[in-house]
Amino acid sequence: MKNVALGIDIGGTNTKFGFVDREGNMYAETSVSTVKTAPGDVDAYLKYVYEEVEKLRETVNEELNIVGCGIGAPNGNYFTGTIEYAPNLTFQGVVPIIELFQKYYDVPMVLTNDANAAAIGEMIYGGAKGMKNFIMITLGTGLGSGFVVNGDLIYGHDGFAGEMGHIMNNPKGRTCGLGRKGCLEAYVSATGIKRTVFKLLADMTEETPLRDITFNDLTAAKITELAMQGDPVADAAFDYTAELLGRKLSDMVAIFSPQAIFLLGGLAKAGDFLFKPTKKYMEEHMFEIFKNKVSILPSALEDRNAAVSGSSALAWKEIDSPR
Amino acid sequence: MKNVALGIDIGGTNTKFGFVDREGNMYAETSVSTVKTAPGDVDAYLKYVYEEVEKLRETVNEELNIVGCGIGAPNGNYFTGTIEYAPNLTFQGVVPIIELFQKYYDVPMVLTNDANAAAIGEMIYGGAKGMKNFIMITLGTGLGSGFVVNGDLIYGHDGFAGEMGHIMNNPKGRTCGLGRKGCLEAYVSATGIKRTVFKLLADMTEETPLRDITFNDLTAAKITELAMQGDPVADAAFDYTAELLGRKLSDMVAIFSPQAIFLLGGLAKAGDFLFKPTKKYMEEHMFEIFKNKVSILPSALEDRNAAVSGSSALAWKEIDSPR
Repeated sequence: MKNVALGIDIGGTNTKFGFVDREGNMYAETSVSTVKTAPGDVDAYLKYVYEEVEKLRETVNEELNIVGCGIGAPNGNYFTGTIEYAPNLTFQGVVPIIELFQKYYDVPMVLTNDANAAAIGEMIYGGAKGMKNFIMITLGTGLGSGFVVNGDLIYGHDGFAGEMGHIMNNPKGRTCGLGRKGCLEAYVSATGIKRTVFKLLADMTEETPLRDITFNDLTAAKITELAMQGDPVADAAFDYTAELLGRKLSDMVAIFSPQAIFLLGGLAKAGDFLFKPTKKYMEEHMFEIFKNKVSILPSALEDRNAAVSGSSALAWKEIDSPR
Repeated sequence: MKNVALGIDIGGTNTKFGFVDREGNMYAETSVSTVKTAPGDVDAYLKYVYEEVEKLRETVNEELNIVGCGIGAPNGNYFTGTIEYAPNLTFQGVVPIIELFQKYYDVPMVLTNDANAAAIGEMIYGGAKGMKNFIMITLGTGLGSGFVVNGDLIYGHDGFAGEMGHIMNNPKGRTCGLGRKGCLEAYVSATGIKRTVFKLLADMTEETPLRDITFNDLTAAKITELAMQGDPVADAAFDYTAELLGRKLSDMVAIFSPQAIFLLGGLAKAGDFLFKPTKKYMEEHMFEIFKNKVSILPSALEDRNAAVSGSSALAWKEIDSPR
């Protein structure tokens, strides 16, 4: 019998889950619809998830003993175990997800948001093993972040700390996904770089295949592919994104003095096209005493299951050092 | 016999010190010249400080038992006990101040910078008693900051974390005291608001007594005094300063989700002229889930001896919970 943690990542469209042992080995994982059950009916949703988890457990040859459960969800509150007013979930108001799901699994159960979960995943299984001070940044649809200080994640006074995506880049700038003005994630994310490409198509005159792609068809992967081919607009878009990210990272270093900063998610797959200029701009803006001390590293969590790995790591962290 | 901590604040010009008990009562304090001994001769300096401490101890009627010592100094490294390349001290390079001073007092001894010391002072004696997550900001010649998370100060990987004064306000903006461009402290500090007044004297046409004061004669206290009288330029200077501070505080709240933010130092003495608009702008820029949750409070450390109180608190924190 193998002890595993159940990792669950709740997204607006899909709920991903899997079984992960203390060393980070994934025994099985799958994805089910978050919106299959009646909208807002969290009891029906959790019953459905439970049934699907048990179905998945039956597919594994080895007998799995679920010793803990970690859940990553938007606006997941670590302290209260509640999902609170998540804008992209159908669950309304404050949902006591841990209390409700513990009816199915009476084991240590932890909730936080997905970027915080990824940070713990990096610490438990990934490139941050043994690090006491580091920053995790997820660059997907938005910009998520998790800050680890003295070996613990910053949850803050109310459990919602770590929203670097909503620090201000330009108070008169782009509207973000939540209707605010000028948030960093409207610039630095897979969506942000798309928006930058369209700004640059307006500003620049160079010919590029990007002039034949609609906004809705464009992806961060396509921009990376064109940057590899030396496309001037794609190149400029990475430079613009990296300058904004690099500057804000130098601010974060001045506050946190971390050992490393990890990047994860769709945009981070661009590799050197993102990492090299970001490092350059970060060092350029860096306060003297921190220069050349901080690495920017790709997350060692496999992208495919980073969300599930991260969530499961929450449970192992809680088992290792209960709060 | 009373157990006290010796608190020492090392500044470029003066070294202040005093004896403080666990409850924050100050038994005696004084200030001596940091530059009386030969420049750079740290042994001579520490011998001089020791002799002056003992002289001060003799002035107290009660017998004082020094059970710990906390030292606040620019670029003071908590982990190594060394002052490293402090730009405004005559000590060159890396100075092992704790090791050297423990020859005189063989007690728990802690070093950090003055803003971090103030944060610990607020937690041990002041308005942050019982708080686990708060931010301390000192607004004097520069902008210093200390961040407390889960009840501990953030020292970071290298011991130098907490330099909010050097996050970027405007990369093409004002030169700061260390020769960098656009640092927040070039705008938000007692010096920063003076610079803003002079910018506004150029931008505005209103008559004001400020047009008869030289840059070198102007003080934050004078600007406050004029703001109280409704001076339009002084008012505008507070508004400008508060907007920049409020915005950056909303960024810090998005990262830390603190219970409160404390302001200390020369500029903080302006009271409502600074606190009210800062709170207004902070809330205006605040990410939705943090709105109206975070107080901005005046430090409860008395200004006169905040530096010495803070330094002594370092020792009590170390005695309470040794690292």
